[in-house]
Amino acid sequence: MSFQKLDELCRRLDALDHAIAILGADEATHMAVGGGEARAEAMSVLAGMYHRQATDPQVEEWIGAAEAEELSGDQAAALREFRRRYVNLTCLPAEFVERQTRSRMRCEQLWRELRARNDWAGFAPALDGVVAMAREEAQLRAEALKLAPYDAMMEQYDPGNRVADIAPVFAELKAFLVDFVPRALAVQAERLAKRPLKALSGAYPVERQRELGLAMMAAVGFDMTHGSLSISHHPFCGGVPTDVRITTRYRTGEFLSSLMGVLHETGHALYEQGLPREWAHWPLGKARGMAIHESQSLFVEKQIGRNPAFWRWALPVVEQHLGEAWTLPDILPHVHHVERGLIRVDADEVTYPLHIILRFELEQELISGRLATADLPEAWDAKMTEYLGLSTADDPANGPMQDVHWPSGAFGYFPSYTLGAMIASQQWAAIGRDIPDADAEIAAGRFDAINDWRRERIWSQGSRWSTPELITRATGEPLNAEHFRRHLEKRYG
Amino acid sequence: MSFQKLDELCRRLDALDHAIAILGADEATHMAVGGGEARAEAMSVLAGMYHRQATDPQVEEWIGAAEAEELSGDQAAALREFRRRYVNLTCLPAEFVERQTRSRMRCEQLWRELRARNDWAGFAPALDGVVAMAREEAQLRAEALKLAPYDAMMEQYDPGNRVADIAPVFAELKAFLVDFVPRALAVQAERLAKRPLKALSGAYPVERQRELGLAMMAAVGFDMTHGSLSISHHPFCGGVPTDVRITTRYRTGEFLSSLMGVLHETGHALYEQGLPREWAHWPLGKARGMAIHESQSLFVEKQIGRNPAFWRWALPVVEQHLGEAWTLPDILPHVHHVERGLIRVDADEVTYPLHIILRFELEQELISGRLATADLPEAWDAKMTEYLGLSTADDPANGPMQDVHWPSGAFGYFPSYTLGAMIASQQWAAIGRDIPDADAEIAAGRFDAINDWRRERIWSQGSRWSTPELITRATGEPLNAEHFRRHLEKRYG
Repeated sequence: MSFQKLDELCRRLDALDHAIAILGADEATHMAVGGGEARAEAMSVLAGMYHRQATDPQVEEWIGAAEAEELSGDQAAALREFRRRYVNLTCLPAEFVERQTRSRMRCEQLWRELRARNDWAGFAPALDGVVAMAREEAQLRAEALKLAPYDAMMEQYDPGNRVADIAPVFAELKAFLVDFVPRALAVQAERLAKRPLKALSGAYPVERQRELGLAMMAAVGFDMTHGSLSISHHPFCGGVPTDVRITTRYRTGEFLSSLMGVLHETGHALYEQGLPREWAHWPLGKARGMAIHESQSLFVEKQIGRNPAFWRWALPVVEQHLGEAWTLPDILPHVHHVERGLIRVDADEVTYPLHIILRFELEQELISGRLATADLPEAWDAKMTEYLGLSTADDPANGPMQDVHWPSGAFGYFPSYTLGAMIASQQWAAIGRDIPDADAEIAAGRFDAINDWRRERIWSQGSRWSTPELITRATGEPLNAEHFRRHLEKRYG
Repeated sequence: MSFQKLDELCRRLDALDHAIAILGADEATHMAVGGGEARAEAMSVLAGMYHRQATDPQVEEWIGAAEAEELSGDQAAALREFRRRYVNLTCLPAEFVERQTRSRMRCEQLWRELRARNDWAGFAPALDGVVAMAREEAQLRAEALKLAPYDAMMEQYDPGNRVADIAPVFAELKAFLVDFVPRALAVQAERLAKRPLKALSGAYPVERQRELGLAMMAAVGFDMTHGSLSISHHPFCGGVPTDVRITTRYRTGEFLSSLMGVLHETGHALYEQGLPREWAHWPLGKARGMAIHESQSLFVEKQIGRNPAFWRWALPVVEQHLGEAWTLPDILPHVHHVERGLIRVDADEVTYPLHIILRFELEQELISGRLATADLPEAWDAKMTEYLGLSTADDPANGPMQDVHWPSGAFGYFPSYTLGAMIASQQWAAIGRDIPDADAEIAAGRFDAINDWRRERIWSQGSRWSTPELITRATGEPLNAEHFRRHLEKRYG
């Protein structure tokens, strides 16, 4: 039984996955400061073991033999997804992967050092090396997958996503936002916050904010028997589906940034906790990809957590934990604050997609070779000026040097963020059709019906469908920018 | 270069070791309650990977080839210890190990259930199965190692320890203790504690006790950049040398039990943190064995932590953290409390060795077949009555059912505890020769000279010597019961 052999292989790979995930979460939360070097060594050896076992040529024979076996529908789906991952894992020669890893690591290290010094000239050659290898990688992937090069890169993160489908949707969204951002800012100017976002008492103690975060996590559906909340420098969702580790960081002066972070990571966690347990060790049982994952976190953060209905329920909970009463008119201007800025990770949901579309456009040009690495700052500045009216002409650190993605070689990943935001809106629209009183449910602190809908249509589906198939099956239509546009119009227009 | 191949194998094995150690510590401290099943699965798969790689027949060829290579003194030592471990790991057939694992797991599960019900009759057949397999194991090990069966079992835990050396020392200690325990109790009756061991204010908050524990850990030498203190149900020392995880549990009514636990685990941690870093991934760089490990924890707990000199320094630190002043005459009766009891893990340093000697004697009889499992309760009761004047005739749960060691198949492990106590005393005596003012150092809160002595002679030696060799080299003489006897006489006589 070759399928059985693959099942045993999946168990071995999943054990390594488990170890790497927990060691990674532990590193950012509980590890002793001096433990980093040995931890990095252990994790890299484990990752090597994973790769060697996952890409063993014998595995291809097992896949072929298993495809000839009599399989249930689930088994056949598991095998399809397994083959897809195997092809994606094995389409680069080992020699190439080693060269690329060295080039990426060197560039990331330089990036940490030179970004702080705003030194584009020193950084550009290293980045150019990574770009050159990314072009080569895209060609290798394209040949193996019979896809266009940039599509082949996206395929790693969101199977089935194609430029031909996404580019028009992003173009439509861009046209809307370039016009909409100034309108949203004008509207905002008329309803400026009267109460500043800070504790009247001067501080909201960390322990109370933590209790508030835990209460909110539990309320929106986080299974506290299968996960936990810790502190880390950068918030993340890690661990494994049976033990999801989410983190936040606290500012004692205000509670909103930490709470919104907790809700965002809770969205990721709900997806992980809702994955099909019986296929947990197979790729079929894992989350579909980055865009869908981001859609689940943004759903909880933006569609639920920044929904005024949510705050009707949440304000008494905040008061109970922090001992201060906030009113809707006082808190909503902060929850819905819009601001043009240079930095993607600080952006709000209105301006964020313009940061992404800029990168999506530039990285296609980079991969195709139409844009040279050396010309990036100028191209970046031109788009930043056009889309957000801000210049980065003399500020590459806040321009093309701001993200770790390109130095680390992750081309084709950026679109996932804005696709996630669009999918979250589309999901909310679909839920609105099936659960007409969704706002009232949320205002009453009831999230079960909404979570059941998402569990059935998204979480429990694991990696059964491609990203576009999953969107269509879950929401009844292909990706449609209109839902996100309407969402922004309603909230900020 | 076969040595190089072994070095690479050691890196792979050490990465798995690292993962298993951190996953184990995490399980007892930070894991979500529902994460246990997947964690157990992952750890068992990783342990299987470790075993397969460590016992690969190819490894034997590499060892043989490496032995013919030109090696440095350190490399030769590393290779010797590697071969020793390889032989210990491979001397049982895989089929036997699987049968034994099943038998042990079933017996351990039954033990948890039936100990609570004091059901010896239900438990005995399962234990007898484990004993039968331990006899078989001892034969297999004896043949592979050319040792007597029980010696071959001890060899797993303390290389070089032999019944011929230990039995006379234990016999001498037993004769002394059977006579000494009543004397110590009589002495104690004359200086009973005047102040009960409890907080005047009713409670010592956990957070303050934790700060006290951290202060003590740091003071006695725990490197806080390479380890941490958490809470767990059973205190332990785990993790890896670069990130040692120790734990304790707190009772808010008194501070002594938690603090003594912290000092005990700190002793284990100092050993781990002091191991030779350059050989960390080889067996040579690991701790020598259970007796030496226990000697390091007992050194910090008993030789330092229960030394009256220590409390001269410690009481102001306790007051600073807990806000209550204790005097030496008030605290010492609690620090030195002696009590006859049925339960080994609750025993003090005077009565503890009698619990161990009883088990050491009985398990030799069990392994040799001279004692049948069915006759254990009677044999236990006879010895318990003779050594401590207590009967377990109708109480097998507090007799031969009290420990998990036998149900889990760990025969040959028990002697380590009392050997550790004896080695700790012998070490203290040797330090007293080299550092005549050791008491004054401790009373001043200075532990550097004592730690330097131990680092040089014990910690940095890793697994370079057998247990008896290490004792002799570190203290200048073979194991000698006299030091422990004198220690007890001085403190309790």
